[in-house]
Amino acid sequence: MEMLRKFVMDTRFNRFITGLIIINAILIGIETYPGVYSNNYTLFFTLDVIILAIFTIEVLLKIAVLRKGFFHNFWNIFDLIIVLGSVILYSTPFVSVLRIFRVLRVFRTISTVPTLRRIVTALFMAIPTISSVLLIMAIIFYVYAILGTSFYREISPEYFGDIFLSSVTLFQIFTLESWASGIFRPIFEQSPSSWFYFISFIIITTFIMINLIVGEIVNNAQKLSENIEEESDEIKREIHEISALRKEIEEVKQLLLEKNK
Amino acid sequence: MEMLRKFVMDTRFNRFITGLIIINAILIGIETYPGVYSNNYTLFFTLDVIILAIFTIEVLLKIAVLRKGFFHNFWNIFDLIIVLGSVILYSTPFVSVLRIFRVLRVFRTISTVPTLRRIVTALFMAIPTISSVLLIMAIIFYVYAILGTSFYREISPEYFGDIFLSSVTLFQIFTLESWASGIFRPIFEQSPSSWFYFISFIIITTFIMINLIVGEIVNNAQKLSENIEEESDEIKREIHEISALRKEIEEVKQLLLEKNK
Amino acid sequence: MEMLRKFVMDTRFNRFITGLIIINAILIGIETYPGVYSNNYTLFFTLDVIILAIFTIEVLLKIAVLRKGFFHNFWNIFDLIIVLGSVILYSTPFVSVLRIFRVLRVFRTISTVPTLRRIVTALFMAIPTISSVLLIMAIIFYVYAILGTSFYREISPEYFGDIFLSSVTLFQIFTLESWASGIFRPIFEQSPSSWFYFISFIIITTFIMINLIVGEIVNNAQKLSENIEEESDEIKREIHEISALRKEIEEVKQLLLEKNK
Amino acid sequence: MEMLRKFVMDTRFNRFITGLIIINAILIGIETYPGVYSNNYTLFFTLDVIILAIFTIEVLLKIAVLRKGFFHNFWNIFDLIIVLGSVILYSTPFVSVLRIFRVLRVFRTISTVPTLRRIVTALFMAIPTISSVLLIMAIIFYVYAILGTSFYREISPEYFGDIFLSSVTLFQIFTLESWASGIFRPIFEQSPSSWFYFISFIIITTFIMINLIVGEIVNNAQKLSENIEEESDEIKREIHEISALRKEIEEVKQLLLEKNK
Repeated sequence: MEMLRKFVMDTRFNRFITGLIIINAILIGIETYPGVYSNNYTLFFTLDVIILAIFTIEVLLKIAVLRKGFFHNFWNIFDLIIVLGSVILYSTPFVSVLRIFRVLRVFRTISTVPTLRRIVTALFMAIPTISSVLLIMAIIFYVYAILGTSFYREISPEYFGDIFLSSVTLFQIFTLESWASGIFRPIFEQSPSSWFYFISFIIITTFIMINLIVGEIVNNAQKLSENIEEESDEIKREIHEISALRKEIEEVKQLLLEKNK
Repeated sequence: MEMLRKFVMDTRFNRFITGLIIINAILIGIETYPGVYSNNYTLFFTLDVIILAIFTIEVLLKIAVLRKGFFHNFWNIFDLIIVLGSVILYSTPFVSVLRIFRVLRVFRTISTVPTLRRIVTALFMAIPTISSVLLIMAIIFYVYAILGTSFYREISPEYFGDIFLSSVTLFQIFTLESWASGIFRPIFEQSPSSWFYFISFIIITTFIMINLIVGEIVNNAQKLSENIEEESDEIKREIHEISALRKEIEEVKQLLLEKNK
Repeated sequence: MEMLRKFVMDTRFNRFITGLIIINAILIGIETYPGVYSNNYTLFFTLDVIILAIFTIEVLLKIAVLRKGFFHNFWNIFDLIIVLGSVILYSTPFVSVLRIFRVLRVFRTISTVPTLRRIVTALFMAIPTISSVLLIMAIIFYVYAILGTSFYREISPEYFGDIFLSSVTLFQIFTLESWASGIFRPIFEQSPSSWFYFISFIIITTFIMINLIVGEIVNNAQKLSENIEEESDEIKREIHEISALRKEIEEVKQLLLEKNK
Repeated sequence: MEMLRKFVMDTRFNRFITGLIIINAILIGIETYPGVYSNNYTLFFTLDVIILAIFTIEVLLKIAVLRKGFFHNFWNIFDLIIVLGSVILYSTPFVSVLRIFRVLRVFRTISTVPTLRRIVTALFMAIPTISSVLLIMAIIFYVYAILGTSFYREISPEYFGDIFLSSVTLFQIFTLESWASGIFRPIFEQSPSSWFYFISFIIITTFIMINLIVGEIVNNAQKLSENIEEESDEIKREIHEISALRKEIEEVKQLLLEKNK
């Protein structure tokens, strides 16, 4: 068991797996060229089975070694799902879902390189701090989607046919892509008051996004300044000693003066 | 009266209202699907009347309990307007205005969830600090709208037909949407000097926006650093005690030396 | 003379001029509606002559009162040019230039409101700090304009016909407006290597812009932190006194011990 | 030799070369106007030979003076490559490569002006700190390119024909240019689930970019705050002396009290 642990935790084993992930990623890329793929179908198929087998063994070994500890790490679970999904779907007719699982294996590059893992973890960490703002954005999208659907359903069914289409259109407007030339101008010709709907949506959502980014920066700066203020507080607490010191010296002087009398 | 206050201020009552707001929001969303709505018209109508009745009672109860205090809170007034608008317009022919009021009830989600309320309040707080910059932007828009109207009214009546159309077009240019492919290039073919009008507008407005954002961040950083500087000042003031201390000790030493003589 | 100074510097006089500037701005806006303008030509003409006359007197009075000091302020010179331009061009055939001067009078709103003046001055102040970056941008634009002209002159004469057209096109690409759908894709069909030209230009210029903004923010933060560090340095210098103090007390103790012997 | 060094390092020599680079840049610009160029072909050709000769001599002189030191500076190597490339390719048939080398000579303006050199060096310095994020972006682009190619190859061969075309298309989507009107909407009509592919790509890549910029700013702020914290630490270390001082004074007082007894 100890030998197994050593083997699994060895950096050479890790490097071998990373190399295999990269080879796998390149193979998946090459397979998108139909000419190359159909002419070497057996080769690609065999390589894929071998790589998937190694990945499965790797995950099983890790579970055997780490036991419960395996499931405490988000990245291990990610690896498990990717491998399990590929194995389960292998001989099912859900070919397109299997294909997605195969492509997602490329993301294992992130899970094996610590620097990349740290950045992605930091990105996930940033989500909770912005979740309230996202909720407000969702409410605004919902209100504008309902308004857009009931106002412009007839004028522009392609863009505002139902709430789902309106939401997609609002996302497009939010990215400012063809909001005027494609969506707003044709509606504007038939509904002159529509400018208020579109321009208010752009101003409100952009304003929220800018404030989100500014807030993110300022929050981080605040944490830094709080560290400094804590240090200042410590210094201040110690420096109050000086007044006490002064009193003591005053007493010493008094003692001396009494004696000198 | 005290019992009423307890009832209105109870978190369970608040949760019930929040739940009702969410149900109301979902209903309003479903109503945009014409098939579903027309087949269940009576159901939707009844539910809407019931919900509006509960909202009206809720607002009346809150006014009864809080009295004048009710009107000191922006969010209470917001709730009152939404409910009042719905009630007043209920049996009038202003159906489209009523519809807007009904949809705006979705925003009550924000008014009942404290976290969301705080974020929206913070957003409103950010407006006064940028109002001067917005005024300058308005002046620039106005000047460019007048210039655009008098220069390109004939060439491009769709975009620069009058000051209002020019303002809408300038807003589109400000968002950089199709400013060249849709608006500038066709005018450029007939008026070769128009590049200066468009490019100067984009550079000036973008420059102001970037400076607004940078200024916003720096202002906040400044407030943080002022806190730290204040602490430093306090420390500095106390540290001057050290010189006083030194003088005292000098005196003590002198006293001793005199005696030793 | 002293009375004149009092009159010119009076806030009521300033408010009157500000009011006149706003009325003037509204009139210029109304004049863009051809129907309104041609029916009331004499009225608008008379009002314009009166307002211009008052502006001319105002500037002359200010010069008389402030003498040389008048020319030390950028905003006074701005007012002078606006008024002088209007007066000189009044009866010349350069009607379109005169029209621009008339519209620019709207900017006098900024020159009379101190808050707006301060913001605009701050914006001008920001230019020198970014001038080096702008120079690098100009060099990059020039190199890409020459390359674009010699590569794509034949394929796309509308966009890359000569260096000037290429520069305008590069500015459009820089704003990311229709860079692919309008400019890149048609060229890409005929010149498959063109992707490098376009994508490298976008990455380089966007990278420089982002670094410019980040640099601007960091520079301002640095100034703030330098203030704090200076304060810390002062505190450190004073705190070194403590060691000196300790030596003194050591001496006092020594004196006492010697006597006790 | 010493005289040569003095000559090469003289600011007047440097200014002369800078002037020549600017003249060269202007000439290269003028040459793009076919009318002007073909009518004065001999003049332009002669001037180009003379300027290239001077540049060659300049680089040779610098190598002679600085010896190995020449190759320690990135900008010297840049100059060498530009000049060497021009010389080697002069009478070869690779005219278009030669043309690029000639245009790149304009970048020598940056290499001779110290302020510009510093900015460009700073820009290059910023690359390593963002390299991990760029790697993650590359992985995401690769995964989405493979998915896009296998999903939309048939629907939209122009945009998703192979991995290379998909990558270019994804870059276009990343810049938000016509992502909906040009690419997404036509695919959306045939594949209703495609909204997830496009919107997830935009949200993920934009989120990473925003976090990259915010991170860049916060990192710089952190460095500044670390400087301040170091100073605070120094102050804190010294301030601990106060407690020692107090003990000493306590001892002095004790000594005096003992004597007074």
